[in-house]
Amino acid sequence: MPRLIEYAEAGPEVREVFDAIMAARGTTDVNNFWKALAVDPVGLKRTWESLGQVMAPGVLDPLVKELLYLASSMTSGCAYCTASHTAAARAKGMSEPMYRELIAIVGMAAETNRLAEALRIPIDPQYE
Amino acid sequence: MPRLIEYAEAGPEVREVFDAIMAARGTTDVNNFWKALAVDPVGLKRTWESLGQVMAPGVLDPLVKELLYLASSMTSGCAYCTASHTAAARAKGMSEPMYRELIAIVGMAAETNRLAEALRIPIDPQYE
Amino acid sequence: MPRLIEYAEAGPEVREVFDAIMAARGTTDVNNFWKALAVDPVGLKRTWESLGQVMAPGVLDPLVKELLYLASSMTSGCAYCTASHTAAARAKGMSEPMYRELIAIVGMAAETNRLAEALRIPIDPQYE
Amino acid sequence: MPRLIEYAEAGPEVREVFDAIMAARGTTDVNNFWKALAVDPVGLKRTWESLGQVMAPGVLDPLVKELLYLASSMTSGCAYCTASHTAAARAKGMSEPMYRELIAIVGMAAETNRLAEALRIPIDPQYE
Amino acid sequence: MPRLIEYAEAGPEVREVFDAIMAARGTTDVNNFWKALAVDPVGLKRTWESLGQVMAPGVLDPLVKELLYLASSMTSGCAYCTASHTAAARAKGMSEPMYRELIAIVGMAAETNRLAEALRIPIDPQYE
Amino acid sequence: MPRLIEYAEAGPEVREVFDAIMAARGTTDVNNFWKALAVDPVGLKRTWESLGQVMAPGVLDPLVKELLYLASSMTSGCAYCTASHTAAARAKGMSEPMYRELIAIVGMAAETNRLAEALRIPIDPQYE
Repeated sequence: MPRLIEYAEAGPEVREVFDAIMAARGTTDVNNFWKALAVDPVGLKRTWESLGQVMAPGVLDPLVKELLYLASSMTSGCAYCTASHTAAARAKGMSEPMYRELIAIVGMAAETNRLAEALRIPIDPQYE
Repeated sequence: MPRLIEYAEAGPEVREVFDAIMAARGTTDVNNFWKALAVDPVGLKRTWESLGQVMAPGVLDPLVKELLYLASSMTSGCAYCTASHTAAARAKGMSEPMYRELIAIVGMAAETNRLAEALRIPIDPQYE
Repeated sequence: MPRLIEYAEAGPEVREVFDAIMAARGTTDVNNFWKALAVDPVGLKRTWESLGQVMAPGVLDPLVKELLYLASSMTSGCAYCTASHTAAARAKGMSEPMYRELIAIVGMAAETNRLAEALRIPIDPQYE
Repeated sequence: MPRLIEYAEAGPEVREVFDAIMAARGTTDVNNFWKALAVDPVGLKRTWESLGQVMAPGVLDPLVKELLYLASSMTSGCAYCTASHTAAARAKGMSEPMYRELIAIVGMAAETNRLAEALRIPIDPQYE
Repeated sequence: MPRLIEYAEAGPEVREVFDAIMAARGTTDVNNFWKALAVDPVGLKRTWESLGQVMAPGVLDPLVKELLYLASSMTSGCAYCTASHTAAARAKGMSEPMYRELIAIVGMAAETNRLAEALRIPIDPQYE
Repeated sequence: MPRLIEYAEAGPEVREVFDAIMAARGTTDVNNFWKALAVDPVGLKRTWESLGQVMAPGVLDPLVKELLYLASSMTSGCAYCTASHTAAARAKGMSEPMYRELIAIVGMAAETNRLAEALRIPIDPQYE
């Protein structure tokens, strides 16, 4: 079990990041991922800021960005990330039919990815 | 190198699938993935039909579906699939800024996925 | 590119292993995997002997063992291993229909593996 | 936790697949994998039918097919799939000595796969 | 759940390895990894001896070797190995600041690894 | 093939990062990784700065940090990263014997990681 830093015991650098997370999300606590990262206040701040940059409003819709994050987390097999980003995607508007389509794509991609590698298929010139 | 089945040498079952692929995509040839799968006509047909079901019009936009397929392929490290689905996503309207945002999400997810697993973070009750 | 140790330049410990490999396989050269490992003669010997133990005649048929090695290599996405163990499996009797069935299983397993993880399915009591 | 669809609450399309699974396996219930997939009746049916095609009697023995599925599941690190396919393999005749040999191959393949990639070994011409 | 072989029920070959593990580590019991491997006494012995060779005193400091083992285990996403090698690294002198730096490297490597693959970056000539 | 941004065509934000990279490394060009990332100047800057923070002097020796980065890259199977970080590690003092020990650890970890997962070994209480 990782050590989880609670707000009450956190130093000012950690509290600053926790405050920013809670403000951004409208919550009164942060989830375990941030509490665990807080053992390294510098890493905590860097990760939160990088995530903010990556997920900032852009050309892709915020829900689409969250779905992409979730698809990537599912594909890499991270249970924590799959759980937390499924919740985040639902909070941003992922409906059950969207979730079903996402799951189906992640499963199908896994199959064709593996087939392409098992058969060692050469990349077509038009894709280079 | 896998054996690649060309249309000219293909039997009727394979040609039927190749015809369907070319019709769906408006192309005059199929890419190597399908030529390699064609050594197994039954598997070729099943894979094409499954892919058709998964990528059929639904609640998610076709471009979003393709971006999800691409994010999943990048995450699983399949070079062929990354190349072919990057091309497919561009054909469906992925702009350079979209591509950049996608790449950034896939990279960031890889980092936080790994951190969550390296720290063995327990899943918060609200995510269960 | 890794440094590849050729027989002519190899020391006696490496030659001993190379001789054993060539004798076991009835070949007059060893493949690049062993030439690359030979930069570490102790590791070369350990790997060859471990492999010999693992692939020794047992309750599973030698071809089945080779198919399992190949399925595992395909699943882990190692191109070199997929290429070399596909050749090895063919040498031990893998027919084209067997190869097709193997590929289909590896692809299908990838899909259901990913679905099980994406959905975070709890293990049924009867499987514990 | 994923939502698990029980037979009692399932619609006719889901029940049809559940009936087919129970008939094929001679059981009075389906395992959680299918209950979780059942949130998407179309995906459930496609996955069950694809699995049926892939695992249908062929040139490889049914036990060998199951062992390959298990080796692939172990290699991809899917705990659910490893648990369920270990049970399935035992039901099809996997003895303890077979299981030990399988485990040893999966472990050894992991090591040589990683060595081949860490050393970036070029594929020998005879394997192309 | 795997079957775990306890010392009391173990045969002489297994006890010999268990004795060696406990002597090397100054403990009065072995951890579950070895108890599970013990279902295959030959594999148990091979794994213990291979591990001994790999982790034997060499040019790299024993703590550095353990940190490398841990980084590799974290990267491959093995929860058991991450837990056991975190403990082993602490026992060999890994301080909290070292642990934080290790975690940060593993996370950062995951991100740049994924970016390099997602972008399919060609290897620079000077790295070949 | 990704688009690679050369210095001559780069805008001021990209040049600033390229200058920083060349200064830090004492080189007159940057490697392809940075040229490819430069299509996204914001991401380029974030990645370079994050990497700088992670690899900054700390309690772990710079060579040890580089070895950890390399072990992680090898384990995740990134060919580009393995090539570039092998070169970086050599530049920081990795000798051939160190490289051999590193490779052996990465290979052995792969095997025991896989065995631990294939056997679904429960984590010992003392590791929690």
